[in-house]
Amino acid sequence: MKPARDKIPTPTVRRLSLYLREIESLLAQNRLTVSSKQLGDRLSLTDAQVRKDLAYFGQFGHPGIGYRVPELVEELRKILGTDRPWNGCIVGAGNIGRALLPYNRFQRKGFHIVAIFDGDPKVVGTDVEGHKVRPMSDLPGLVAERDIKLAIIAVPAESAQSVADQLIDAGVVGILNFAPVRLDVHDKVSVGDVDLSVALEQLAFQASLGVTGSLDDRE
Amino acid sequence: MKPARDKIPTPTVRRLSLYLREIESLLAQNRLTVSSKQLGDRLSLTDAQVRKDLAYFGQFGHPGIGYRVPELVEELRKILGTDRPWNGCIVGAGNIGRALLPYNRFQRKGFHIVAIFDGDPKVVGTDVEGHKVRPMSDLPGLVAERDIKLAIIAVPAESAQSVADQLIDAGVVGILNFAPVRLDVHDKVSVGDVDLSVALEQLAFQASLGVTGSLDDRE
Repeated sequence: MKPARDKIPTPTVRRLSLYLREIESLLAQNRLTVSSKQLGDRLSLTDAQVRKDLAYFGQFGHPGIGYRVPELVEELRKILGTDRPWNGCIVGAGNIGRALLPYNRFQRKGFHIVAIFDGDPKVVGTDVEGHKVRPMSDLPGLVAERDIKLAIIAVPAESAQSVADQLIDAGVVGILNFAPVRLDVHDKVSVGDVDLSVALEQLAFQASLGVTGSLDDRE
Repeated sequence: MKPARDKIPTPTVRRLSLYLREIESLLAQNRLTVSSKQLGDRLSLTDAQVRKDLAYFGQFGHPGIGYRVPELVEELRKILGTDRPWNGCIVGAGNIGRALLPYNRFQRKGFHIVAIFDGDPKVVGTDVEGHKVRPMSDLPGLVAERDIKLAIIAVPAESAQSVADQLIDAGVVGILNFAPVRLDVHDKVSVGDVDLSVALEQLAFQASLGVTGSLDDRE
């Protein structure tokens, strides 16, 4: 029996995104098939690891052929939920928020950033990449109206919790948090943390020990 | 006997950065002491987990007092290697590279971004936040001259490997990679991957399953 999807190990789920990224790049090169060995080599993983990870979700390989690239792309998108579009918003129109707004890889993944908000009256109303920055008071209405499910928080640490509370009340289901603070989401939504200082600090630590290769591979 | 530092579990090392972030914020509030329970509460961790993580590195608690905040800040900075400054550079003067250049939290951690490079002759020579964008041909000389140890790659996927090779040849020891591709660093440097599309995709997956809380807590 397969485990429930929310019981699948997080490293496996994280690798699914990397598999999808690699086979999307193969698809763009019109490659039709790929073996677990070839897929593993591109990510410094063993073929056994690739097969084990994918086996959590079904039987995708074909004997003597390997994986069919277009089929595996479709299956992985379905598993990860990116076979349908997701609307998102950004809160915080500082450097990071502004840089993420036109990030075209979000678009390609089916993530559509449809609004950007800021709490600063001096920033509200200005134009960022064709989007007018909205006041926080517009948030509940727009989240409902545009069916916004995901939000990116790119505000200073001291405002992040209040922004998270407003987003949760408005009905988003997932938050990607760039503020350097742990959010309390009252067990209501998923949170992914991207603290760029922490990432650089972790890198400095590993580099000073002489640890080489990708830090993600160390579990 | 304590394990060698490069054998300490990665989740423990990652949490060290979170402990440091929290106690730096306590220090800014002039708090003098903190208990493992209080520190754990701020990060949704048990006090036992906090004590176990810190015990890998030494005996920092004082009976009846807990941890002395200024002392623990200093010790954690020493462990993580941020008690001394690190020079870094950014390769890629697109939206992400430009947003990271003035990121003041890097400065506060002792990371000084001293140069930004780009391969596009149309971008080279332009000004970004007071830095003139340098051509790639300046990279080896500047890395040596300015003692640049860490580099941030913010170029498209197709150029990232070539940029990584040039950085490694120039002598950097750590790379923070924003390009959506797995780098082959020939086991010579540490790599941290920040793929923002993958982060959003993972969030969408967990959110659609109704998994709540921080994804980092799931190991």
